[in-house]
Amino acid sequence: MKKGKFIGMGVGPGDPDLLTVKAVKTLNNIDVICAPKSAESKPSLALSIIQSVLNQRINDYITLEPLFPMIEDKNELQEYWKEASKLIIEKLDAGKDVAFITLGDPTLYSTFSYVFKLIYDLDYETEIIPGITSFTGCSAAAKISLAEKDEIVVIVPKVDGRLPQILEHGDTFVIMKTSRHTEKLKEIINGDERNKEIISVQNCSMKDEKVRNGFTEEKNYLSTTIIKFNK
Amino acid sequence: MKKGKFIGMGVGPGDPDLLTVKAVKTLNNIDVICAPKSAESKPSLALSIIQSVLNQRINDYITLEPLFPMIEDKNELQEYWKEASKLIIEKLDAGKDVAFITLGDPTLYSTFSYVFKLIYDLDYETEIIPGITSFTGCSAAAKISLAEKDEIVVIVPKVDGRLPQILEHGDTFVIMKTSRHTEKLKEIINGDERNKEIISVQNCSMKDEKVRNGFTEEKNYLSTTIIKFNK
Repeated sequence: MKKGKFIGMGVGPGDPDLLTVKAVKTLNNIDVICAPKSAESKPSLALSIIQSVLNQRINDYITLEPLFPMIEDKNELQEYWKEASKLIIEKLDAGKDVAFITLGDPTLYSTFSYVFKLIYDLDYETEIIPGITSFTGCSAAAKISLAEKDEIVVIVPKVDGRLPQILEHGDTFVIMKTSRHTEKLKEIINGDERNKEIISVQNCSMKDEKVRNGFTEEKNYLSTTIIKFNK
Repeated sequence: MKKGKFIGMGVGPGDPDLLTVKAVKTLNNIDVICAPKSAESKPSLALSIIQSVLNQRINDYITLEPLFPMIEDKNELQEYWKEASKLIIEKLDAGKDVAFITLGDPTLYSTFSYVFKLIYDLDYETEIIPGITSFTGCSAAAKISLAEKDEIVVIVPKVDGRLPQILEHGDTFVIMKTSRHTEKLKEIINGDERNKEIISVQNCSMKDEKVRNGFTEEKNYLSTTIIKFNK
């Protein structure tokens, strides 16, 4: 029997209309959808984004919702990824195509990459469908250009000790999950004497999207701060 | 009379199926499409990407194709941008909505941003629709993850003197238009002693897409090299 294909699919930042045509076409026919969740009680945000597409399907599909808890221990996490890949491989071996959905793009800061490696190494047919990244969703919402001409853009997923070092070498900084470390970020950015424009976006492209000048004050997982140093 | 809305729209890296649903919906109804071209004899690549959508339209639309030559002189370029914005404003004042289409995403290295500023400052209603960026198109084509966990991604639009300085501070480098400067890039990257994975992609998501390990050898405008330093 022909084995199924494993597809990684970005569903974009939140607005279902920011799905690609390719993602919608795939979702209309896919046998199995894999949508990990971080806790048993917490439905997958990525799954909610594609729900309106799934609601229009005529034929049945299977949904896998493996648990990927938000823990730091990589050894423990690996067990969860292996467990998820087993569930997926079972479906692939039965000839079913599986789409693993991720918020934003599957190649940027996604747990998809760990599961993908496990399955790719076993020689299954694979495909990656890119998605709108949260940070271009944020710049679109804020109506600012991220970069022009020869400007360098730096994407920093976490405010940590390396940020001050790289700061002077780039022009635009996209800092993710900033609401966790607003004070630390303020201190680092204000320490740079160049002229700057600071814009924060929360829940980009969703109904409760917020765009503001300056740093984020509220706690929110989906917070991004864009800092543009003007030459 | 109600004035028209000015919309910046990313059409993605090349495959029409990488348009967003929002872009397709907008293109089905928009009054005017603005698709700059770099030379009179050179049709817009962005326009060719949306052609299949436009071919299915029932009602008429207008296409504006202002000239944005590939020159370096910013003063001279500004005249072209002003000229384009005049053409667009004429349509907006006549109550027509205008979509300015750009390859990839409109907020990343697009001439759209210059025209947008001119029109935004005049208080017209505006919107930006994000597009799939060429570099996530490239990582998807190459089936690699760009970054995981706390890894820093640096986007470098041009191989220049700043690259060696920033190199040690990031984990993944996306270098655009690399075929122009392959030798210089090789020298800089090989000067970094960390383990690295180098992948080049040309014409990502198009029919003649090429993915290869190492640097680009052919001359091609749409060449991107991804360098991942492994920790």
